Amino acid sequence: AIDRERFVETMQEQAEIGAIDGRGLDRLTLTDADREVRDWFRDQMEAAGLDIRVDEMGNMFGRRPGRDPEAGTILLGSHLDSQPRGGIYDGPLGVVAALEFVQTLEDEDIETERPVEIVNWTNEEGSRFQPAMMSSGVWAGEIARDDAYETTDAEGRRFVDELERIGYRGDIPAKPQHDYDSYLELHIEQGPYLDEEDRDVGIVTGIVALRWGEVTFQGQANHSGTTPMNHRNDALVAASDVITQIRRIPGTLGERTVGTVGDLEVEPGSINVVPEEVRFTVDIRDPDDAVADEAVERVKAEIVAAAEREGVEWEYEERMKAKSVSFADRCVDAVRNAVSDLEYDGREFISGAGHDATYAASVCDTAMAFAVSEDGKSHSPAEYTSWEDCYKAANTLANAALDLAGV
Amino acid sequence: AIDRERFVETMQEQAEIGAIDGRGLDRLTLTDADREVRDWFRDQMEAAGLDIRVDEMGNMFGRRPGRDPEAGTILLGSHLDSQPRGGIYDGPLGVVAALEFVQTLEDEDIETERPVEIVNWTNEEGSRFQPAMMSSGVWAGEIARDDAYETTDAEGRRFVDELERIGYRGDIPAKPQHDYDSYLELHIEQGPYLDEEDRDVGIVTGIVALRWGEVTFQGQANHSGTTPMNHRNDALVAASDVITQIRRIPGTLGERTVGTVGDLEVEPGSINVVPEEVRFTVDIRDPDDAVADEAVERVKAEIVAAAEREGVEWEYEERMKAKSVSFADRCVDAVRNAVSDLEYDGREFISGAGHDATYAASVCDTAMAFAVSEDGKSHSPAEYTSWEDCYKAANTLANAALDLAGV
Ligand SMILES: NC(=O)NCCC(=O)O
Ligand SMILES: NC(=O)NCCC(=O)O
Repeated sequence: AIDRERFVETMQEQAEIGAIDGRGLDRLTLTDADREVRDWFRDQMEAAGLDIRVDEMGNMFGRRPGRDPEAGTILLGSHLDSQPRGGIYDGPLGVVAALEFVQTLEDEDIETERPVEIVNWTNEEGSRFQPAMMSSGVWAGEIARDDAYETTDAEGRRFVDELERIGYRGDIPAKPQHDYDSYLELHIEQGPYLDEEDRDVGIVTGIVALRWGEVTFQGQANHSGTTPMNHRNDALVAASDVITQIRRIPGTLGERTVGTVGDLEVEPGSINVVPEEVRFTVDIRDPDDAVADEAVERVKAEIVAAAEREGVEWEYEERMKAKSVSFADRCVDAVRNAVSDLEYDGREFISGAGHDATYAASVCDTAMAFAVSEDGKSHSPAEYTSWEDCYKAANTLANAALDLAGV
Repeated sequence: AIDRERFVETMQEQAEIGAIDGRGLDRLTLTDADREVRDWFRDQMEAAGLDIRVDEMGNMFGRRPGRDPEAGTILLGSHLDSQPRGGIYDGPLGVVAALEFVQTLEDEDIETERPVEIVNWTNEEGSRFQPAMMSSGVWAGEIARDDAYETTDAEGRRFVDELERIGYRGDIPAKPQHDYDSYLELHIEQGPYLDEEDRDVGIVTGIVALRWGEVTFQGQANHSGTTPMNHRNDALVAASDVITQIRRIPGTLGERTVGTVGDLEVEPGSINVVPEEVRFTVDIRDPDDAVADEAVERVKAEIVAAAEREGVEWEYEERMKAKSVSFADRCVDAVRNAVSDLEYDGREFISGAGHDATYAASVCDTAMAFAVSEDGKSHSPAEYTSWEDCYKAANTLANAALDLAGV
């Protein structure tokens, strides 16, 4: 069992870096707050006696040798970056739980058969720079490093320049530096199921397919008072048409299909000007890749129809395409066994959120555990998991990891 | 007849101040560009021998005495501020034409019976600070000065602080300092009718009723991937519902009813977060106040229905309410006669845009003339009026003004 008191204290410490008004985090990737939490995490890894390396995507690894130098490594981790207005558990819980695991090994002088590594992945959230899980994606060879470097945020700043600016562009190539046996990630559920059913821990068997895009409608700016309704090419009306359809389409497809427009910008954005240009994001998910693709096709058909009705130009740019993932049985079993050994009440499901485990799964056997999210709230300062639930989930991770690492 | 060459040169000079990429103006009220064009205009008025005063709203007046010191003054003018991405004619044409009129009186040594004043009104556009026509509204006693002072722009800067900052907060109370006989304003049409019918000049008989509001929907931020569609309170979906209805409602009411959502902002605005808060503007107009009010009621009903469907909170804040205006026959006649004396092809209509003439009409007899807007485009850099059409309209103004001022 991990040290509950230290674990909670470490969670509280990280939550102070980039804190917003008493609750929640504003710790977007590659900002000063991200630099600060990285410095803090490096100190923590150093104090735990880990061998630290930072790769060219800013991914931070801390390694603890095993008894058998030839054995495949067990990798544990998650991310310390947050949404612009995010919670303190999302991401950090998995990193702190991984750290606590190796600290516990040190405390108890446990030598594992396999080497153990912990990791903080760069830009998991994908809010500032798209795609999400960018740097585990590069590490796994699924995203090209140079494409990632060239992505820009809303202010036009390049990823690579911001990475350099905060001093976390490492020298080591962003690819597996060892042979990895398995990857385990603990995360909060971010959805309502564990809480609704009053369960302790989630056993995650896979991750949904994820499709992101950006739509641009280009109309004609004109005067709101003098331009008759039939003389207009209103980019915001076209966008609104599509948004109401994205609210409807999931209900015509799978039970777990979701569709969201999270961000939208209007140019010139003046009370008495017919909108000329509107850009908005599209986020579509389903456990089944074919259903996710079908949903994207339906959204595109709505884009074309709305553009035609309103007489505006349209563009659809793909921002991310992550295939659905089924985790390896032996890793899911390790989580399942840990839950039952600890006599927790577990529930199995597929994650609706993307995680770095998506890409790690293409490198080695992978699984995840979920902590309860009160009311299913996440990507909001209102996100909440009790310390008791955090502890149960972290303990599950530690036991599953110990099982895989071997004593 | 006015001096066509000088008039075009003066138009071109003003168009250089706050110019955007070769075409159009970014000269929002109370910005540095607005200060610059005001300094330029003061120099122009000085050179024309006018007696200058600036009132506490920054309205700039230039006075030329008449033969009869007891006679009511003829006031001519418009505004030099622009939309964030506006055209070079909107507003400036009316100010430059008024200036050209008094310059022509000087050139030709004409003494008018009545004093003549020209004016540049502050914040006509209403894009940065609402309401529009703010300072003619204060001058006319229809808007309280202190309410106007306290309005803030999107960055939270107060009108009064910005007015002070650019050095145009005058000492003179913003109210009529003389007895005014009449107000004439020349403006571009900003709509399609003159161009469609190939007319020379518009004779404006009144101005539509105008209603502005701001809507806020407050939902719950949540994760776009893990939050089932039936667990959402999406502020942007509610807003989109209302926007599609605002596209439809005018067609169910009057022939000239228009409804526009020109600006919209999403919080937190992240690709994978269900929108928590959306604010958007509403602009409704009709020649008939009762129809405009009915349209606002219908929009409000849609706001309530959309909020209920999506489970979000709503708020509607009125930002402006300007009653429709019918101009005085004797002033409209002056414009009508000028058009026919000059053998131009005129067309009579009601303006769909608000103008400072709206508020001037509550102080004295008022009328307007319109110049052709190619393709009806305005509030866009694409706005265009040929110099020939500008000249015809300015000549119309000069002739009508001379008629009212008496020689
Ligand atoms: N877990 C998480 O919120 N990841 C960000 C990518 C996503 O939106 O699923
Ligand atoms: N003429 C003009 O564009 N005025 C601004 C107020 C309005 O939107 O009508």
